[in-house]
Amino acid sequence: MNESNKYAVFGAGSWATAIVKMLCENLDQVGWYMRSVYTKEHILKEQHNPSYLSSVEFHTDQLKLSNDINEIAEWADVLIFAIPSAFMHSELEKLSLDISNKIVVSAVKGIMPESGLLVGEHFHDIYNIPFENIAVLAGPCHAEEVALERLSYLTISCADPVKAKAIAKNLSSDYIKTKISDDIIGVEYAVMLKNIYAIAAGIAHGLGYGDNFQSVLMSNSIREMKRFIKKMHKMKRNINNSAYLGDLLVTGYSVFSRNRMFGNMIGKGYTVKSAQMEMNMVAEGYYATKSAYELNKTNKKKTRLPIINAVYEVLYENKNPKKVFQKLTEKLD
Amino acid sequence: MNESNKYAVFGAGSWATAIVKMLCENLDQVGWYMRSVYTKEHILKEQHNPSYLSSVEFHTDQLKLSNDINEIAEWADVLIFAIPSAFMHSELEKLSLDISNKIVVSAVKGIMPESGLLVGEHFHDIYNIPFENIAVLAGPCHAEEVALERLSYLTISCADPVKAKAIAKNLSSDYIKTKISDDIIGVEYAVMLKNIYAIAAGIAHGLGYGDNFQSVLMSNSIREMKRFIKKMHKMKRNINNSAYLGDLLVTGYSVFSRNRMFGNMIGKGYTVKSAQMEMNMVAEGYYATKSAYELNKTNKKKTRLPIINAVYEVLYENKNPKKVFQKLTEKLD
Repeated sequence: MNESNKYAVFGAGSWATAIVKMLCENLDQVGWYMRSVYTKEHILKEQHNPSYLSSVEFHTDQLKLSNDINEIAEWADVLIFAIPSAFMHSELEKLSLDISNKIVVSAVKGIMPESGLLVGEHFHDIYNIPFENIAVLAGPCHAEEVALERLSYLTISCADPVKAKAIAKNLSSDYIKTKISDDIIGVEYAVMLKNIYAIAAGIAHGLGYGDNFQSVLMSNSIREMKRFIKKMHKMKRNINNSAYLGDLLVTGYSVFSRNRMFGNMIGKGYTVKSAQMEMNMVAEGYYATKSAYELNKTNKKKTRLPIINAVYEVLYENKNPKKVFQKLTEKLD
Repeated sequence: MNESNKYAVFGAGSWATAIVKMLCENLDQVGWYMRSVYTKEHILKEQHNPSYLSSVEFHTDQLKLSNDINEIAEWADVLIFAIPSAFMHSELEKLSLDISNKIVVSAVKGIMPESGLLVGEHFHDIYNIPFENIAVLAGPCHAEEVALERLSYLTISCADPVKAKAIAKNLSSDYIKTKISDDIIGVEYAVMLKNIYAIAAGIAHGLGYGDNFQSVLMSNSIREMKRFIKKMHKMKRNINNSAYLGDLLVTGYSVFSRNRMFGNMIGKGYTVKSAQMEMNMVAEGYYATKSAYELNKTNKKKTRLPIINAVYEVLYENKNPKKVFQKLTEKLD
């Protein structure tokens, strides 16, 4: 890891665009892979992403744009993936290059739905990337606020603190403060689990529960998250750090969170399918719910997950949200 | 403590009115002291409080209303105080009765500004009430949602679990779930401290910080609250329980919180005095800030309180909120 390491971002959604903006504050050149030819051409011509954070202007001479994932993966040393988890698999299939010598950063807000693996685990298992070369980027951070240059804090987790620090340095700026952590597994689970709790918050809101209940739900969520992560990877961590609690709150309290919105529609009476069709997308938390539920079910050391179980029953067992949440309220305190 | 214990509420604000409503779900008669003759007459005539939660209708034959604090204090066995802390002293001065044999419940959301004492401590010191007869009622609970019968959770803290349970039972209903705790000091500090953090959230909002920062601020607030309470009263407690974290969140995220509103005005450029005049009241957190600051300063076992210190500097040292918060952001993570 040295000063001349080249960084590239994979994806063209709002989070990917925000990360490119952060890197452009520090680096002479930033690689940027995106699938869409139209988006690339638009950025080159108009200096902004047509679909996401379009208020952010780029100096295009600072960008190395490409629609060829292999070209960018070859050029860069540090590959930051910010592709929705549902598209990760099909995007990575295009990768013919050996990336085992690269540093891979997951900024994916979920798990691989096909395998149920954390993104970091996926890179380790499939691409033979050693764990000390895998990092996870966590919020709490709405991309929209990065676009507005509103002060935000990021946590970069990596087993190797030197790499975490180097990546953190290149993301830091006047409006981005960074912190490093060595809890790569815990942070990646937190990023995944918060989306389930955001769906739960949405369902509750849709059913007519108010702010008092929301605060009880969040207070129970962080305790449940702590229990879950502890079973998966026991180590000393403060669950109230920003990467865990902060990220839960920024998502669970956001009316813009797609996971919360999805839950809200379910709470209001939409079926899971119709909510997904209406939103024209599948919320990350939908997959996360199944994975978390099954991980706990197959784990020898099971833990109590009333909120995740309730969301699972609503999303996958077609149970009545009103009844499920009525039962859930008895289990919270 | 037995089934025939008589309960009375002291105060006529929104929280007092909500507590009377909760008790009316369970008891044949509820005592209710209020200073204002007009309010009492209005309730008797119109079956609702004219100024707070006026949508809540009471059966007046269930209420024992009086403007004489001694009459109600004498009649009742369990005295629930829900008077703003700024008025507690002048109200209690009217009390000529010996109440040392009563059970006293503090639903006051702050400390006694004159003495800097927690309300529970005040009753212990001045009225010789043994600690096992003192309870604290904590949220997370907006009174407005009680009026709407939206599901809410309360925590009743008392050193004596039998009393805590009895009080909890009389407050429970379809829409109120209760939990008991023996951490009376910790819960009372949490109730007080959350108002300071709500002021901090308001100042940050007024200065233009966004949701990402708010979540980092709340994540740091709960860690700071944990440190503070631990220094004051060390015992095993889960700071993420609803009475601590839940109450912090429902206040810190509420746009209706008077403490947050007060902070917001300061952040937007009002002076402390003009904000107080504009709001026609002094936010509880204003006094709490001074108390918490001084308690820590005089404590042999000091702890790091960057958020409380920042709010103190703005409110009491006339420092520029923008500069103080810029410095604060360096201390958060």
